[in-house]
Amino acid sequence: MKIFALDSSSNSASVALGENGKIIGEFYADTGFTHSRTLMPMINSLYESAGLSVSDMDLFVCCTGPGSFTGVRIGVSTVKAMALSTDKPCIGMSSLETMAYNGLICDDCIIVSSLDARREQLYNAVFYSKDGSIKRLCEDRVISCKDLINELKEKYFSKRIIMVGNGSDLCYNVWDGCDLNLSVAPANLKYCSASGMILNVEKNFKNLSTTSANLLNPTYLRMSQAQRELCKRQNKV
Amino acid sequence: MKIFALDSSSNSASVALGENGKIIGEFYADTGFTHSRTLMPMINSLYESAGLSVSDMDLFVCCTGPGSFTGVRIGVSTVKAMALSTDKPCIGMSSLETMAYNGLICDDCIIVSSLDARREQLYNAVFYSKDGSIKRLCEDRVISCKDLINELKEKYFSKRIIMVGNGSDLCYNVWDGCDLNLSVAPANLKYCSASGMILNVEKNFKNLSTTSANLLNPTYLRMSQAQRELCKRQNKV
Repeated sequence: MKIFALDSSSNSASVALGENGKIIGEFYADTGFTHSRTLMPMINSLYESAGLSVSDMDLFVCCTGPGSFTGVRIGVSTVKAMALSTDKPCIGMSSLETMAYNGLICDDCIIVSSLDARREQLYNAVFYSKDGSIKRLCEDRVISCKDLINELKEKYFSKRIIMVGNGSDLCYNVWDGCDLNLSVAPANLKYCSASGMILNVEKNFKNLSTTSANLLNPTYLRMSQAQRELCKRQNKV
Repeated sequence: MKIFALDSSSNSASVALGENGKIIGEFYADTGFTHSRTLMPMINSLYESAGLSVSDMDLFVCCTGPGSFTGVRIGVSTVKAMALSTDKPCIGMSSLETMAYNGLICDDCIIVSSLDARREQLYNAVFYSKDGSIKRLCEDRVISCKDLINELKEKYFSKRIIMVGNGSDLCYNVWDGCDLNLSVAPANLKYCSASGMILNVEKNFKNLSTTSANLLNPTYLRMSQAQRELCKRQNKV
């Protein structure tokens, strides 16, 4: 089964191709440019490098959020287009779950995936890496750094904890000095990587829901700024 | 300091750009095509994606072996050309040491880097990952799977051991069933990755020797088949 995977839910973008447990190729970029500039050339280069095209794929996987609203929309639209044009199934995957696979090599470790949700909050979920498997310990949620650190202290005090995602830096001031065995993943594994989706699909295909292109949708977890302001205005009226 | 890093010492090829502890971009391919076909377009795409060019780089890093003789020569020649044309320094890095950085996220782990050296032998070195640092435990060498496993049993019996590189599969029949706490790295971290060179440079720049382009040379560890046959013929005469 040939798999194409794409993430553009935060600052970085990445695309990967996989087959039978192998990563055929991956292109990762954290360049400061917009996804609308970098993503399509990355996809072209990746397919070309592997001598493959969209029509060779059996499955399309996409990070559907949480994360940057615009980034998620760009990713979902791109994957929808590929799946629609080939009539192949899709899987929408949590960006937080995808990042947890950066810690798959670790054993008996808590993996804390966090993305900056602005307004001093994080998109966050907590996972456990053991014996080459990732187990989800809570649903994707919006939480403050302080509440997250308190939860980690309470539940996982004795464990090694690894933070992944751009939310890790936000937490720094809160967790620095606390007694947790906590560290941020090294630069090669700090941010979301499309190969994480391929690892997840290869391990858990039977438990993941495939969907048709027209049912692949973003999962924002929170209202957009425009929606929040509309609600505020409507309440005022 | 902007760093360009390249590996083409085994089946996979990868190129990466880094700056100030961050991976700006990475393109990895394990496509089955020759490096002579895939490598140059990968380099172009990576630079283009980041809006950078060869002349923006301050340092060029290259896996100089051990590994495939042709692969190493392609990599070294490519990096020599970039460094010569810009008059910038190079670092030649062991492919085995580069791969050890795949295990940097692991703590208190032995990382065993191995590449298939043909004739039932491995290019191999052993490292220790602890507190976000990689410590080399032996020099790069050529060793049989059996001797490697015996050494691991003798020296690191109580430790978690992670194997990286295409030599891991060769060892499978030898180590399967032995009592070591040994596993092969997951697919996203199994093979050599140019970002490993960037991690190493960022952490250990002061201890690594830079060289000029004309002094960057392959480190084969073993004679090529042509050289072996020449020696054999000369001994016969």
